Parts: sequence; C-alpha cells; structure tokens
Amino acid sequence: MARVFNFSAGPAALPLEVLETAKQELTDWQGCGMSVMELSHRSKEFLGIAEHAERALRQLLDVPDDYRVLFLQGGATGQFGAVPFNLADAAQTADYLVTGSWSKKALAEAKRFCRAKVAGDSQESGFTEIPDPSEWDLDEDAAYLHYTPNETIGGVEFHFVPESGDVPLVADMSSTILSRPIDVSRFGLIYAGAQKNIGPAGLTIVIIRDELVGKAREGTPRMMDYAPMVEAGSMLNTPPTFAWYMAGLVFQWLLDNGGVSAMGETNRAKAELLYGAIDSSGFYSNPVRRDCRSWMNVPFTLADPELDGRFLEEAKAAGLTNLKGHRSVGGMRASIYNAMPREGVAVLVDFMKGFEARYG
Amino acid sequence: MARVFNFSAGPAALPLEVLETAKQELTDWQGCGMSVMELSHRSKEFLGIAEHAERALRQLLDVPDDYRVLFLQGGATGQFGAVPFNLADAAQTADYLVTGSWSKKALAEAKRFCRAKVAGDSQESGFTEIPDPSEWDLDEDAAYLHYTPNETIGGVEFHFVPESGDVPLVADMSSTILSRPIDVSRFGLIYAGAQKNIGPAGLTIVIIRDELVGKAREGTPRMMDYAPMVEAGSMLNTPPTFAWYMAGLVFQWLLDNGGVSAMGETNRAKAELLYGAIDSSGFYSNPVRRDCRSWMNVPFTLADPELDGRFLEEAKAAGLTNLKGHRSVGGMRASIYNAMPREGVAVLVDFMKGFEARYG
Repeated sequence: MARVFNFSAGPAALPLEVLETAKQELTDWQGCGMSVMELSHRSKEFLGIAEHAERALRQLLDVPDDYRVLFLQGGATGQFGAVPFNLADAAQTADYLVTGSWSKKALAEAKRFCRAKVAGDSQESGFTEIPDPSEWDLDEDAAYLHYTPNETIGGVEFHFVPESGDVPLVADMSSTILSRPIDVSRFGLIYAGAQKNIGPAGLTIVIIRDELVGKAREGTPRMMDYAPMVEAGSMLNTPPTFAWYMAGLVFQWLLDNGGVSAMGETNRAKAELLYGAIDSSGFYSNPVRRDCRSWMNVPFTLADPELDGRFLEEAKAAGLTNLKGHRSVGGMRASIYNAMPREGVAVLVDFMKGFEARYG
Repeated sequence: MARVFNFSAGPAALPLEVLETAKQELTDWQGCGMSVMELSHRSKEFLGIAEHAERALRQLLDVPDDYRVLFLQGGATGQFGAVPFNLADAAQTADYLVTGSWSKKALAEAKRFCRAKVAGDSQESGFTEIPDPSEWDLDEDAAYLHYTPNETIGGVEFHFVPESGDVPLVADMSSTILSRPIDVSRFGLIYAGAQKNIGPAGLTIVIIRDELVGKAREGTPRMMDYAPMVEAGSMLNTPPTFAWYMAGLVFQWLLDNGGVSAMGETNRAKAELLYGAIDSSGFYSNPVRRDCRSWMNVPFTLADPELDGRFLEEAKAAGLTNLKGHRSVGGMRASIYNAMPREGVAVLVDFMKGFEARYG
C-alpha cells in the first residue's frame, strides 16, 4: 500500500524523511558496521548520538542552562508517580488542574503519594473547556501545580501558561511538546512520552529545573529518582538507545524545517482548516469550547453515529487511517501532530466534504 | 565498513537477518503504508505483532499456561525495585545470592523496600565463583530467593537452578535468557532486560507465575505493579512497540534456527572454543572457577596490561569490536550471545593467537 495519512493519537506518524534515514542506516550506522541498536550505550558512537539529540532539543525549545534534560523510560504514566516522589512529601499538598482523562489519571496516581487535590476542574462541562483561572483554588504552599496542556482524548488545550506564582509548574506535554514555541523558564518540570511528537514509544523526556533535582523522598524507587539519572546523564541503566536516536533524527528534522516557530504556524493553520470544515458543515461537530480547542487532537462526531463505520471504512480506502475516536468518547479523532503535513489535513477535509455530500 | 563481529555486552549484536527484515519493512510494515513505529498499540496490526511475539517466546521457553508474560519498560534495574514491591511486605525477609555486580545492585535496591539479606556470597573470591549451596543461609519464610543466573560483568554463571523449596525463586536472566533451555516451572518470576539476547534496549520481559500476581503492597507505583499490567496485556500505558516488534523477529529467528536447544549447543561450543584458547595460552587468562564460567560473557586479561590498548586497536582493525572489559574489572570481555555466530568466536580466537605470537 502507498504511504497513508496516519491520524493515530500515538504511537503516531513520523516524518517520512526520518524513517528513510533510519532505514538507510539500519544495519550499518554511518559506516561503523553495526546498527544503532547494537551500539553500546557507553560507546563513543552512541554518546555522540545522545549528545546530538539533547543539543538539538535544547536548541528547539531554547532550554535555559539551569535545566537538565533526561531521556527516560516508563512513559508519562511513569511520571505520574515520579513527580510526587521527587517533588512532594507525603504530607504535602499538590495542586492539579483536571481537564480530561490524562490529568485525571495523573491526579489519581499522585493521590497515592501526597495530598494531591483538584485546584480546578471542568468535569461539569464534560471536559470540553479549561476552567476559568479566576476560579482556581491554588494553594501557595503546594509542592507544585500540575496540568496537562493538551488532553489527547478530549482535544482540549491550554493556549496559555497557568500562573503559579512561586509554586513550581509541572506539565505533562506528551501530546503538545514541540508543536509550538514555549517558554521553558515558566516551568519547574516538563515531561512527555515520545510517541506523539518526538519519536517511537518507549522514550520519555523530562526537562527539569536544577533546583528541583535531588529532593526525592526516602523510598523513591531508584529508577524514578531524577537525581541519579541526572548524575548519570540518563544512563543509570541502559537507556532506550534506538528511540533516543530516532528522537534525535526528529529533532534534526524540526531544525531543518524551521523549528518550533514554523511548526506552530503550520499547526495553527492545520487546526484552523479542520475546525473550519467541521464548524461550517451541518454534519460534523466538535464539542470543545472554541478558545480551548486542541491544535493536535481534533475529536469530531457525525450527525448520524450509524455512519461511523462507513466513514472509517471509506476513509481507510482513501488512505486516511486511524481516525476512530477514543473508546471513551466515540466518534472520530484526527491527531495532527508535527509529522502530519498540511496536505494530509487538506485531503481529510476534502474526504469529509465528499462523505457529507454522499450521506449527509 | 563491512559488518563487524560485535562483542558488546549490551546493547549487543542482533542477528543480521532480523535487522534486514526490520530494514526492509521500516517505512511500510507488510503493506499497511505505515512503519511499525507509527502503529497504534491498540491497532489490529500491532496487536498481531504483540501476540506473535508472546506466542513465540512461550514456545521457545515452553512457558507453562499458569505463567503470564509481560513486555515492560525500565530494564532489570526497574525490576530491582518492582520485585520487592510486588512480592514482599516491608517487614518480610527476602534472600539474595550475591555473585557479582548485578546481584549486588539488586540487593541494594531491595534493602530499601524489605528485609533483604545475603543468603550466599562469593565476595571473598572476588566474585569468581558461585558460593557452595551447602553454605547458603536460606530462610524458609523468605518472600523469595533472588539470584542472577549470569553475571554480565564478572562472567560467572550458575549452571544449575538453585533449590528454593517452597520459597518462590526469582531470577534476573538479562544476560542468559534464551541462551539454553530452562525449566520455567522452577521459577516464580523471571525478568530480563532485552538488550542482550532479546532485542533493542528499552524492553523488559517478565515471566511470572499467576499466583504471584496481585500481591503488590500499598504504595507500589502503578507502573511497577504487575497486576494491572497483566490485566491490560502489558498495555496499561503505551508499550515500547518497536522494541516489542524487534523481539518478535528475534524470537522467530530463534525458532527458525532450532530454538533454545540448538542455541544451547552452539553457545556451549562457542564458550569451549574461547575458554580453551585462553587456558591453553600462557598469555591470556580468565579468573573464574571453571564450573562457574559464563557461556555468554567471557572476561580475560592479557599477561601484560600495557598491551591492552594495542589489542583493542588491532582487534577493531580486524573487525572485532567492543572487546574492552567493564571499567570495574579491566582487561577484555567478549560477550558471545545468541547473535554471535560460531565463526565470530573462531575469528576472535585466531586473532588472539596471532596477537600472542606477535607480542606475547
């Protein structure tokens, strides 16, 4: 089959140029006679790959010098536990903004390890908006304020950075990192599973302000403690080397294509095109309040849910895959991360119009 | 450079046929128009890949039906903590056999979470042997007995399975799994980082007897609790999909090449060839007691350590890479896992003889 436009929420599409580079050097990385997968993580070759990836990521996000970048395992779900272990005492409060499935899961795990509480919640709206900051119940003694800038399932995104005062701001950026410029200095800790905008599943990026490293409570599993990982350059144990390499290729691809500013413009345009098509139809709809709509994950429903199966079938035949919505929401979802070209969204919009004309 | 013989201890050499298959389908897995890395872990395509890998592993090791197989993240180092969290209460004893660097690390982490104690230790010998079972101090109320069947750094291997009575036996098989047949029913829990005999780094296999699942203590980080992982088919969160796929290719390669019985014969022959060359020379030596020598990791020293640099340089020029010993031991180490063909060991032995003739 020809290359498709893959709207998967994650693991997600990767840039074809990146995959082709990986393919070309898969059995022999730059003439060393070995695959990247076969390189010792302590070898000169792999250390070069690792350093390049970190340098490129720092350049892309303009990461300040007093922040460490870690390349870890365990996904964002692992970080749901690691964050309270490292930043809070068991008796301490931590504030959570709850705007959908992922922030709920982060809160549930944190509650097991500290006094995590809801500081703001959009449950009443069915998680279709960001709760009004004026109504947030922020504790100025909280260990941190946690939020999920983009909810992958509900398609709700913060288009602003919460003001947390002196309380460290912690963000699960799994489905939004690198999609636009951010001011890293506003955050105490950023974490992100790689499988949306960074690379293959199995890699987790943590960006943490120096002063927050080394505060893990007694009884923190060593693999979850940031301090020894920082000290070991993310190599306390064998890191996921191939995923790290792939991330480096993606970072380089981003640099070669204008960095996160250019991505931000393209992503805004892609989102406007798709939401515009949804809003202007009488057939498709998206439930999210307009100022909270995600640039990355666009859920939408058909006027007649009985047509869902046919929509998916015909879309797949047209080379548009993985449009099925999350099982908890139903309908459709188009995830349009960095690797989804504008053309892919245009083809989807054309398909949607044709489908509406045929069945609407 | 032509393909080399890569003696890395891990990440380690992979079968060339496996790498070539991965290369061929890297941008388009079996005509689906997507890379394996781009497949949703919940897609029909990836679920097929995942199930195939588990089935092949079960067939290779003849895993009994009352054992679960998990495909996780975090490495053996993650399991050092997960094992006590899941199998012991904080007040309970756990027995550890300490035969080298890795079992020491496993014990150190377990001590933070339960009453882990040394049940047998070969420190006095400089970790060059297995302590005599008659001298082991086993507690019949221990939560489990942990050992490291093969010490990757010291090159010490158990060529028997410890008798633990009714106490569940737990083994870190990272550097020995699939190297020969084992009787899984003797074990309560087996874990292994993938990057030696299974696939790329970033994947960890756990094989656990059903009755040991669901006993995790309160406060176990969710990502370390086996029960929800069993329930979710290792997909509590996004698993390391590409590494899982690669493992499946390696398992299939093993099945196509006679399985672990054939591997065991080849590995024994490879080890005999290399130890024979070491022992018959007056120039090379291996410190490990003969009945405890590893089939997988063969450390050796040169009579004159000042020749180490030259040995490594000339070996590399001859296409023999990553022979440098671990920094804690010095000298050389040849890791000869399944993917190292007999020919590679023969070429190494010839090189060693030539080097000795020139400089010995």
